[in-house]
This record gives sequence, structure tokens and C-alpha cells, in this order.
Amino acid sequence: MDIHAIFTPIESELNQVEARLRSEARADFGPLAEVIEAIIESGGKRIRPALVLLSGHLRSVDEEHLLRLATSVEMLHLATLIHDDLLDKALVRRGAPTISSKWSEKATVLAGDFVLAKAAKISAQVQNFAVMSIFADAAMVLCEGEIRQDFNGHGQSTDRAEYYQHIFAKTASLFAACTESAAALSEATLEERNALRTYGHSLGMAFQIIDDVLDFVGTQDEIGKPVGNDLRQGLVTLPTIYFYEQDARRKTLDSLFSHNGHTEQELHQVVEWIRTSPAIQAARDEARQQAEQARRSLEIFPESPYRTALLELAEYVVERKK
Amino acid sequence: MDIHAIFTPIESELNQVEARLRSEARADFGPLAEVIEAIIESGGKRIRPALVLLSGHLRSVDEEHLLRLATSVEMLHLATLIHDDLLDKALVRRGAPTISSKWSEKATVLAGDFVLAKAAKISAQVQNFAVMSIFADAAMVLCEGEIRQDFNGHGQSTDRAEYYQHIFAKTASLFAACTESAAALSEATLEERNALRTYGHSLGMAFQIIDDVLDFVGTQDEIGKPVGNDLRQGLVTLPTIYFYEQDARRKTLDSLFSHNGHTEQELHQVVEWIRTSPAIQAARDEARQQAEQARRSLEIFPESPYRTALLELAEYVVERKK
Repeated sequence: MDIHAIFTPIESELNQVEARLRSEARADFGPLAEVIEAIIESGGKRIRPALVLLSGHLRSVDEEHLLRLATSVEMLHLATLIHDDLLDKALVRRGAPTISSKWSEKATVLAGDFVLAKAAKISAQVQNFAVMSIFADAAMVLCEGEIRQDFNGHGQSTDRAEYYQHIFAKTASLFAACTESAAALSEATLEERNALRTYGHSLGMAFQIIDDVLDFVGTQDEIGKPVGNDLRQGLVTLPTIYFYEQDARRKTLDSLFSHNGHTEQELHQVVEWIRTSPAIQAARDEARQQAEQARRSLEIFPESPYRTALLELAEYVVERKK
Repeated sequence: MDIHAIFTPIESELNQVEARLRSEARADFGPLAEVIEAIIESGGKRIRPALVLLSGHLRSVDEEHLLRLATSVEMLHLATLIHDDLLDKALVRRGAPTISSKWSEKATVLAGDFVLAKAAKISAQVQNFAVMSIFADAAMVLCEGEIRQDFNGHGQSTDRAEYYQHIFAKTASLFAACTESAAALSEATLEERNALRTYGHSLGMAFQIIDDVLDFVGTQDEIGKPVGNDLRQGLVTLPTIYFYEQDARRKTLDSLFSHNGHTEQELHQVVEWIRTSPAIQAARDEARQQAEQARRSLEIFPESPYRTALLELAEYVVERKK
């Protein structure tokens, strides 16, 4: 399944969002404009603005305000990427050097803040207070989730509840904000708005679980990172949790995170064990259940190309290879 | 002149802002709530919320919305302090340890982002799009100004235009946003709104120039930092610019910033020269002119306790010892 094909009903609108992002990238200070342009350029699937556009069109909606909302959510997402890359000390994002690899720490933090303020500015132009509030909440959940993880052993916990809480904060919360705020902007009823929030939430959980699976089973070419990168960074995700719960070799995992550290070879071995264990399928099944729940929540909406696209998107999210 | 006496007409409202800040500090995650509480606790003059309250009351205004705006601007200011302390590697703010001195870099960046999102959330509750837009603009100017400085030799330029641009971005822009947005919220005419913007802008310039003067002439007890701290950090401010323009000993200054570095003794000597030179009075005079302009811009408003307070505040800003 090709994501561009799924996005056909909103293709021209997505192009407009792209154009607006680029025109918003302009700043008085040349180098700042350049790095923002570069992070827009580095692309990504634009899944968040697509969620806004598709969800908004399920009911009657003001086209201009919807476009602004879609632009604003992607801008917010880009701001989080700037700070993420800095904090993860990432040098490359999708093949292009990150801002933090080229700029001082100071300038990078401020560039992220600048893009955040830009997102807030565009979001004010949506002229809907509920929308602003939904996004501010999602941004707070996101920050709090990452801080919590930084405190709780930097994501090394094999506690299931902690994992779900973290992927909600990291991904699902913003997905839910996209679909819910689009509903708030449209003439959707409260029931429909809740259904769309559920859709975004479940889709986001599925999306992140699959991201975490691909970290083990994708090829470096497909996912743009070395295989097993999460575990390498000390981050425990769902496949590792399943492995830990079900496989006797869990003891090696314990020693990986012990104070004694581990060799590259040990890490490689554990990644290989997980990659070829039933833990992968178990995690995939969970993602599929979440996607199923996302699809079911759309049942209350009448047939439309937008609804079809959202249904297909839930399929795509669990089938994708990258 | 005592700032608390000046703020008498809005004393109870400032107390309410204080209470709201504290109640907003609550976060689901305990440690996060604690550090936000600490930064609120560390105080400051609350000059920004006071500007909002006094400016708003020059004309008829919705009390509840004005309080929310005042709370939101202080929250935004606190967010900038969290990132500033991190980027300046400051260990102490007003006698209390900074967040960045206790937390990881990651958690500190995210705590600043969280407080920013909180400010945006409260600002959405003001329910005025002009207000939101004014603040997002000020936040962008602030970030861009600091990035620009980071690029332009980290503030070591003795160029006057650069200095003015920087203190506008750093301080005056947010002061102007406070007074202008309060006007936008009230029934002020467009002419009055512009006058209040001018007031905030000029007051902010005066405030920052005096801050920069106090860095030379204040005692460590009064300003909470070692004397000459700016120059020590390599930051050129107005007293240094005057000294550089008017004093033959400027050559020593050049060598301070040369690649060869400098001894503690040389730095101490230059600080002492500037501190006892006419440059200090020249900088003070400039601040006084800005304050005068701020006062003049209020002439179009009728007599009121709020107007009197704003006039006195312009006096206070240049007279203050800390």
C-alpha cells in the first residue's frame, strides 16, 4: 500500500500545506530561515497534517482554517524534532545533517523555541480556542512524557504500563490532537469528535508500536538507522518487553542494563534473539488490534473518500516497511 | 522609590496572578511540578504581569481575561528563564539553584518547553486572537535575537545598532507585547494601543540599559552576580560601547577579546576603568531619555491611579539599584 495513493483525496491540500510551511520558514535572520527550510525539506510522511485534513473533511469545514491547522500541527511536530535531535545527539535525520550537528547547543534550543512560537502563531490564525487548547495540552503531555522517561531510568524499564504511557505521550497524544481538533473545527457532533479522538489515539499507538518493531526488523536502508538502535540507546520497547516476559534468555537482557555495561557483541546477540523471536509477531498483533479499534471508531461516519482514506491509513500504518 | 508602592493599585490582582501561577505549576509528574514551583518561587519583580494589569486598566477591560493574560505572560517569561539558565550554564538564580544545575540537559530543555506550552494554553484562555499573535511574535523575536547574537560573535560586537537590536529582542519586545496586548484586550482605541506599545517598548529599552549599567556599578549583593559579569561572559553592553567610543584605553578592550585570551587581572582592570568612566553616566542618560519617551506616550490617557503607576514605573526603572 502506498501512502501517496491513500492521500489522493487531499493531495492538492497537502501541497498547499507544503507551500505554506516553506513560506513560513522565512525568518529575518538568514541562517535561521535556512535551517528551518532544511528540516521541512527532510520531509517525513506529513501524516499529522493529513490526519487533520482527512478528519476535518468528514463533516463540513472551513477550508482556509483547516489548512492553517494542518500547517500549524506540522510546524509543532518539526519543533519537537529539532529538540529531539539535539537531546538524542542525532547527527543525521533522513540522510540530512541535523541542526544540532551544525549549530551550537544554544542556537539549536532557540531554533526549536522559534519554530514552536511559529506554530503557536499559525495556530492562533485558526481562530478557534478549543483547537489551541487541545494542542497546548498535547505539547505538555509530550514534554512531560519525555521528562518522566528521563527520570525513570531513561526508558530502560520493562514495565508495560510505563511503555504505553510513554508512546501515548510521544506519538498518540499528538495524533489524537490532530483528529480531535479537526473535528472541533468542523461541524462534527460531540460524539463524532470523540470518535475521531479515539481514532487518532489508537492509530498513534499502532504507529509507534510498528515504529518500535521496525527498529528491530527493518533494514538500515529502510529505516535510516542501524538495526536495534533503540536498544543500543538503552530504550526498551514492546518487542523487548514481550521477549523479556516470554523468553528464558531474559537474563542476558538484565545484564545488558547492569552497571557493568556490555560489549557490542552482546548487544548484537540480544537484538538478533529478539528479531527472530515470537515477540515481534506479538507486538505486531497488538498494533493490529489498535488499528482495528481505530477503524471501528469511524463506523458512525457515512461513506466518503475521506473516511475510506482514514480506514486505509489504519491498514497502512501496520503494514508499512518503513 | 519602592516598586511595591507603585504597584498598589493592582496589588490584589498581582496576588491573584501569583496564586494562579502556583496552581498552574501543578503537573501530573511530581518532580516537574516541583521545579516549576521553584522557578516561580525565585520571584523576580513580576514587572511583566504588572505592565499587563496597569495598561489594561487604562480603559475598560474584562477583569478575568486580563488576569489570565497577566498569568500567561509571566509563564512565558519563566519558560525563557529556564532555557536561558541552561544555555548560560547558570547554577543559581536569585540565590536558588537553577533547574539546569539539578536536572539533565534533556529534562531542562523539556521543562522549558512544557512551561512554554503551559503559557500558550493559558493564553488561549484569554480568548483573544490578537493577543495570541502579539505574544507569538514577541517569542519569535526573542529567539531570533538570541540566535543572531550567538552567530554574531556571541555579543562581542561594539556596534551600537546591534546592541539596540539585541536589547529590543531580549527585553523591550516582550514589554511592548505586554502593554500592547493589554490594550488590545481593553476598549483602548488604535491610537491608544500604539501609545501603549511605545510605552512598553521604551520602558523595556530603558530597563535593559539600566540592567547593563548595574552589571558594572551594582554590588554583588544587590544584583546577585559578580560585578562585570557580562564582560566576563564576553558580552558587550552600552557602558562598554561608550567606553570604547570615547576612551583611549579601548585598545586593552580589543586585546581582551583577541584570540590570545586575557588574565583575570586584565578583565578586572577594564571593568574598573569602565565603572569609573563617564560611560556609565552616558548610558544612564540614554536610559533616562527612553524613560522620558515612555512617560510622554501616556499623555493621551486621562489621569488615573493606573496611569500614575505607569509614570512612576518609568521613573523607578532608571532609578533602581537592583
